[in-house]
Amino acid sequence: MKRVAIFPGSFDPFTNGHFDIVNKGLKLFDEVVIAIGHNTNKQRYFPVEDMIAKIGEAFNDNEHIKIVAYSELTVSLARKHNAKFLLRGLRNTTDFEYENSIAQVTKYLDNDLESVFLITSPQYAAINSTIIREVHRYGGKVDDLLPYKL
Amino acid sequence: MKRVAIFPGSFDPFTNGHFDIVNKGLKLFDEVVIAIGHNTNKQRYFPVEDMIAKIGEAFNDNEHIKIVAYSELTVSLARKHNAKFLLRGLRNTTDFEYENSIAQVTKYLDNDLESVFLITSPQYAAINSTIIREVHRYGGKVDDLLPYKL
Amino acid sequence: MKRVAIFPGSFDPFTNGHFDIVNKGLKLFDEVVIAIGHNTNKQRYFPVEDMIAKIGEAFNDNEHIKIVAYSELTVSLARKHNAKFLLRGLRNTTDFEYENSIAQVTKYLDNDLESVFLITSPQYAAINSTIIREVHRYGGKVDDLLPYKL
Amino acid sequence: MKRVAIFPGSFDPFTNGHFDIVNKGLKLFDEVVIAIGHNTNKQRYFPVEDMIAKIGEAFNDNEHIKIVAYSELTVSLARKHNAKFLLRGLRNTTDFEYENSIAQVTKYLDNDLESVFLITSPQYAAINSTIIREVHRYGGKVDDLLPYKL
Amino acid sequence: MKRVAIFPGSFDPFTNGHFDIVNKGLKLFDEVVIAIGHNTNKQRYFPVEDMIAKIGEAFNDNEHIKIVAYSELTVSLARKHNAKFLLRGLRNTTDFEYENSIAQVTKYLDNDLESVFLITSPQYAAINSTIIREVHRYGGKVDDLLPYKL
Amino acid sequence: MKRVAIFPGSFDPFTNGHFDIVNKGLKLFDEVVIAIGHNTNKQRYFPVEDMIAKIGEAFNDNEHIKIVAYSELTVSLARKHNAKFLLRGLRNTTDFEYENSIAQVTKYLDNDLESVFLITSPQYAAINSTIIREVHRYGGKVDDLLPYKL
Repeated sequence: MKRVAIFPGSFDPFTNGHFDIVNKGLKLFDEVVIAIGHNTNKQRYFPVEDMIAKIGEAFNDNEHIKIVAYSELTVSLARKHNAKFLLRGLRNTTDFEYENSIAQVTKYLDNDLESVFLITSPQYAAINSTIIREVHRYGGKVDDLLPYKL
Repeated sequence: MKRVAIFPGSFDPFTNGHFDIVNKGLKLFDEVVIAIGHNTNKQRYFPVEDMIAKIGEAFNDNEHIKIVAYSELTVSLARKHNAKFLLRGLRNTTDFEYENSIAQVTKYLDNDLESVFLITSPQYAAINSTIIREVHRYGGKVDDLLPYKL
Repeated sequence: MKRVAIFPGSFDPFTNGHFDIVNKGLKLFDEVVIAIGHNTNKQRYFPVEDMIAKIGEAFNDNEHIKIVAYSELTVSLARKHNAKFLLRGLRNTTDFEYENSIAQVTKYLDNDLESVFLITSPQYAAINSTIIREVHRYGGKVDDLLPYKL
Repeated sequence: MKRVAIFPGSFDPFTNGHFDIVNKGLKLFDEVVIAIGHNTNKQRYFPVEDMIAKIGEAFNDNEHIKIVAYSELTVSLARKHNAKFLLRGLRNTTDFEYENSIAQVTKYLDNDLESVFLITSPQYAAINSTIIREVHRYGGKVDDLLPYKL
Repeated sequence: MKRVAIFPGSFDPFTNGHFDIVNKGLKLFDEVVIAIGHNTNKQRYFPVEDMIAKIGEAFNDNEHIKIVAYSELTVSLARKHNAKFLLRGLRNTTDFEYENSIAQVTKYLDNDLESVFLITSPQYAAINSTIIREVHRYGGKVDDLLPYKL
Repeated sequence: MKRVAIFPGSFDPFTNGHFDIVNKGLKLFDEVVIAIGHNTNKQRYFPVEDMIAKIGEAFNDNEHIKIVAYSELTVSLARKHNAKFLLRGLRNTTDFEYENSIAQVTKYLDNDLESVFLITSPQYAAINSTIIREVHRYGGKVDDLLPYKL
């Protein structure tokens, strides 16, 4: 049976840190579904459609990668894709506590969905989407922090 | 002299984790005042009036429990109720640092008001109001996370 | 019914931080039993008997304080003293995680014994027994860190 | 190709928390090698041979589980078993920081060995081997904390 | 060559904790530039102009202190002032992780700009601008938390 | 007046992480005294004399660096060297809490001695002396983790 994992996030934008986790995840899973959660009430900085295109470019049409947008519970999305795993990256202890909460609630909503964690490589661990948006907004260079050209 | 404790929070909604802390608190205090802080500028997901009714239901009119709404400093509310203690639940280290700050400032505002902490039972520690609102918004089941029926 | 709490520790030595927690605990409990855990295999820096005498001096024969040495499970000691509470001080997040583990295992061993936490006042939060022993060993002054004269 | 993971630890003793992680790991890997690191200089509380027998009992001769003792670098052991993954459990933020260090050094020693983390179920997260030894030493009951009879 | 440091923040308001860090920083640097980051989209509680005046008052026209407002990347501001250092205060572990991220990204944007950290004195560590605004909004006294009269 | 900083540690061994902090510290201080604390009761893995030689080699007789061994309080050593600063590296939140305690006690012992913190570069943050000793003991390669040849 194919091992499918969902890699959920808002990816505003998708960073080198995310790229690192997905590439490591491909050793573990037969398919990784990168799932961009979007909420029509919440304004994004990088539009979902653009981000889907950029992520596709980064992975160069790798057939083990799917990229989707969704606005439902992650457990519902997982069922549609026959995914038994959630893939998540950990950068630091603040991440850990947040992820711990999400993992327990996911387990409560769907006992068959297992959360699997990989640790972000140290050179990417400081990068997060919020800081990248901030730097970009003020005209700073962010190209080396992203796995594609903006 | 009666030992009275304030249990302050926004309780949007009041969860099984909160319920657990109040029940443990009743071993320590003669009266626990559950105090729903609300700020007219800030939109709630569950209205204050509904939440007061639901919490009352959960405690089944226990005479050692009072439920109030307030929009003033917690130290002022404590004085009105002759409360010498603030009761707080700790779930994880992020909670701890936040609570540590609140406790020191409370002490500065009223040196006689002591903050008392109980640790949330592990099966409830992952639950928080933000996650419950998120699940409820997308139509997920939340009944087992709350001490009353919605 | 009298509310009795055990305040367990190795107290090698008992510091101003411990003194602060016990004094706050006296507002909450009718009796606090300061319980020096000692293990005949483990060498202490300050002998148990001396420490019992010094702590007694610090509290000036307060009748709400008992000081005992013990070498058994804390839950067994609690039963002998009809204590329904363990009093613990929290200084920082490392403390919190350790205490969280101890509290859950205590609960497993005796479901009626509740762990109650108070936060150490900021001016005492950096003091711990290990650092005091280190300073004392090299002849540094430690008098202002202890609630008694050495 | 078979996905093999090493689950290294001192397991003094192997707890319900470890049992939980291995069982979750079996969804992800075709074989899990439980590897008891032992150091001839360091005294154990539960002998390695006894622990191997007890763990075998707990898993009831599951053919996807191997149990070995080792005293070499974990990366060397992994090569012998053609393991491309290290399986690790996370209980709290202190665990996370320690594991983060180990994972980076492992990566430095063998770039093909990926560390994979699962979060311990909340009911087991407080249990650790040190506390179990402490309770056992004083004659407290530990049977409900272990996946086998002592 | 003069050692110049930027001390960036939103300072809404500037607190005794900030005052403590700048005073310690003056032992290390020949000039400290207190830089109030402001974003025209984001509403402040205390206007930037008032805060500049109040901070000036607190430092009593010390010639080693400059106070400026800015709305650009901190690395650009640093270049204008020939500052080779960013001065930052640390109060707790949550601060640390945030600062760690900022420091790494700063390094990426300008490899010559070094982040230097001082730990806030314990009596000020619980104070943060958010709590002060909250207390002030409800009419609580905040004068002892600020190095100037409001 | 010369700005002198003590960089204290057991340095068993001195790592690339330590090397990184000292090099950054040289931008801030006119002299950095690398001070190897040793305790005659405590067995080292790498002898003090060897380590002094290796560190000297790493810094290539830089005249702004001094290397000394000491077995007294760090505050006493600082006085002898007219050092007004302690230089310390921070790698993660566990480091932070430990350093916070040390910094407060140092302040208590000598109010004029300021602790200054730099954050270890991410590629070195996982390295610590304990892990290096462990790898070396089992014959693993450690050369790329040290700023000198063993």
